[in-house]
Amino acid sequence: MIASFLAMTMIEDKNPQRTSIAQLGEFGLIDHLTKNFKINQVSTLKGIGDDAAVLDFKDKKVIVSTDLLIEGVHFDLAYMPLKHLGYKAVVVNISDICAMNAKATQITVSVAVSNRFPLEALDELFAGITHAATEYNVDVIGGDTTSSQKGLIISITAIGEADEDEIVYRNGAKQTDLLVVTGDLGAAYMGLQVLEREKQVFQVNPNSQPDLDAYTYLIERQLKPEARKDVRTLLHALEIKPTSMIDISDGLSSEIMHLCKQSNVGCNLYEDKLPIDPQFINVCEEFNIDSTTVAINGGEDYELLFTIAMEDFEKIKGNPNFTIIGHMTQESEGVHLVTRANTKIALKARGWNALEE
Amino acid sequence: MIASFLAMTMIEDKNPQRTSIAQLGEFGLIDHLTKNFKINQVSTLKGIGDDAAVLDFKDKKVIVSTDLLIEGVHFDLAYMPLKHLGYKAVVVNISDICAMNAKATQITVSVAVSNRFPLEALDELFAGITHAATEYNVDVIGGDTTSSQKGLIISITAIGEADEDEIVYRNGAKQTDLLVVTGDLGAAYMGLQVLEREKQVFQVNPNSQPDLDAYTYLIERQLKPEARKDVRTLLHALEIKPTSMIDISDGLSSEIMHLCKQSNVGCNLYEDKLPIDPQFINVCEEFNIDSTTVAINGGEDYELLFTIAMEDFEKIKGNPNFTIIGHMTQESEGVHLVTRANTKIALKARGWNALEE
Repeated sequence: MIASFLAMTMIEDKNPQRTSIAQLGEFGLIDHLTKNFKINQVSTLKGIGDDAAVLDFKDKKVIVSTDLLIEGVHFDLAYMPLKHLGYKAVVVNISDICAMNAKATQITVSVAVSNRFPLEALDELFAGITHAATEYNVDVIGGDTTSSQKGLIISITAIGEADEDEIVYRNGAKQTDLLVVTGDLGAAYMGLQVLEREKQVFQVNPNSQPDLDAYTYLIERQLKPEARKDVRTLLHALEIKPTSMIDISDGLSSEIMHLCKQSNVGCNLYEDKLPIDPQFINVCEEFNIDSTTVAINGGEDYELLFTIAMEDFEKIKGNPNFTIIGHMTQESEGVHLVTRANTKIALKARGWNALEE
Repeated sequence: MIASFLAMTMIEDKNPQRTSIAQLGEFGLIDHLTKNFKINQVSTLKGIGDDAAVLDFKDKKVIVSTDLLIEGVHFDLAYMPLKHLGYKAVVVNISDICAMNAKATQITVSVAVSNRFPLEALDELFAGITHAATEYNVDVIGGDTTSSQKGLIISITAIGEADEDEIVYRNGAKQTDLLVVTGDLGAAYMGLQVLEREKQVFQVNPNSQPDLDAYTYLIERQLKPEARKDVRTLLHALEIKPTSMIDISDGLSSEIMHLCKQSNVGCNLYEDKLPIDPQFINVCEEFNIDSTTVAINGGEDYELLFTIAMEDFEKIKGNPNFTIIGHMTQESEGVHLVTRANTKIALKARGWNALEE
């Protein structure tokens, strides 16, 4: 499935239908692109169609996060199908709302495209956005559509709601708290390495048919990540409120540094506790890359990283959704990885830096 | 003042201080750019620094609007100083909140820049953003800073608040309502024409010193527009609630068409009532352009256009802030300009189309 659309993306249709977006005009285009958006949230009083949207959160607090995605910086259309890009752009923002332990309710979507994009390409992008909005039950309440000088630009603002006592910030971790992560780590980064390699193979031999069966999980983690909207419910059922929380977009080590800095604590992270997928290990070996390095520094997992009080250990122990990967310490002890060989290495926030060339 | 900074922009400093933004890294850059943002709104519980901002509007409704501004499409850095661009980017979004008869309270600001921008240029941009945030008393609560493949990209989401019964939509105009506009029309468009002309003169002769005294008002309307946050207060004091409202970003005729379409009414607009500035008339003559055409189709005035019940005529009559420029009709009568010669011309929503090349 993933392999076949990848092939479809790379083996471009030479005669696709191409409708110029300039033909529709700005208002016509916006009408066309937004006609499928339905309003489902009771908090949405007015969606698209006025100068601004109107929302009503009653006694809930309002959570707001925003992201800007730029072609050639954050994504490569050579292997990122537009429908998946639209889906991922929404997911990435909803993940930030999840990281506050809140429920995403609305998004605004702004898109700029160069004239090389036909209407059909925008339709694909918006199909992905619509699919994500449906999956995550968020209303698309506004946005902007315009032209760019170069490439595709997507800006999404996600809005969510939560009761005040539910909200979890980055700054609440305590010295003896346990460090917990959802899902597994590093797969999205290795998926990107596989896709980059296939792109290069394709550039040399455009008739090559990629066999990507051994990489499906990794590629799916890269191209179609999901936000952990389930974690809020899972934790609520376990009667656990995290003391701090963040989502893993820039890489585990970078996010741990954020929690430690804002909470004024240190951390010991245990190499042998890192949750990694067997396919991930195989592909790291194939690429001759150290799997721990990738698990710690690879970004875009969109899992949640949080701390809980030690007393909550029994509630979470053995739960397949969560892995305890370390514990917080006094700030003066610093932030370290404890290796399998039981040596301590200072963690650095390498993360992912969009500003480097 | 305007003329001198225009000259300063065009006569570029050949040895400015240039600090590479890559030097700071992503987190360092965000810290640097956001350190001056203060939180003033009681509704802002948490601003920049977590996965998302947290807001509390209690029993108020929440108003949300968003815009994407692209270099080469929406602005030209040849004559738009970065500080003014930052200011205008904020104002344009706040204007949408004002057009709902709401009060702007927060903004998120996302910026993407190519590596040709030194830190000092970003500082100028953020100085303008900070100035606007202070002037309009809005908190900057989030955003994103990243690199672009080409040029400068700014995405702003504005958030506001209002009581439910204060909010004014586009769809409430009635058949006999009066059509009212704030300020004057067309000046921003003619300011742009003057700046475009000066740019061409400058390209031919880089040593020319522009004398722009005759154009200061027009240039200011283009480079440093203001959102009409005062109108909400003015109308409240007059005990007038508009039946429909919109801001003039794409041009008067385009906005009238929106009100008519959404309210299912027609409109007669009177040429002799259009509020235009004497400097505007002079410059239209100089450029040999029909001033009515520009007043009706020129965009970016950021004035408010609204309808009021006929009974409110006495409350608004002679008020220098407002001009009654027409009245609504039955939908079947269509949307017309009534000229000084008393002929009726059907209005078209020409507006401004960023998707045309």
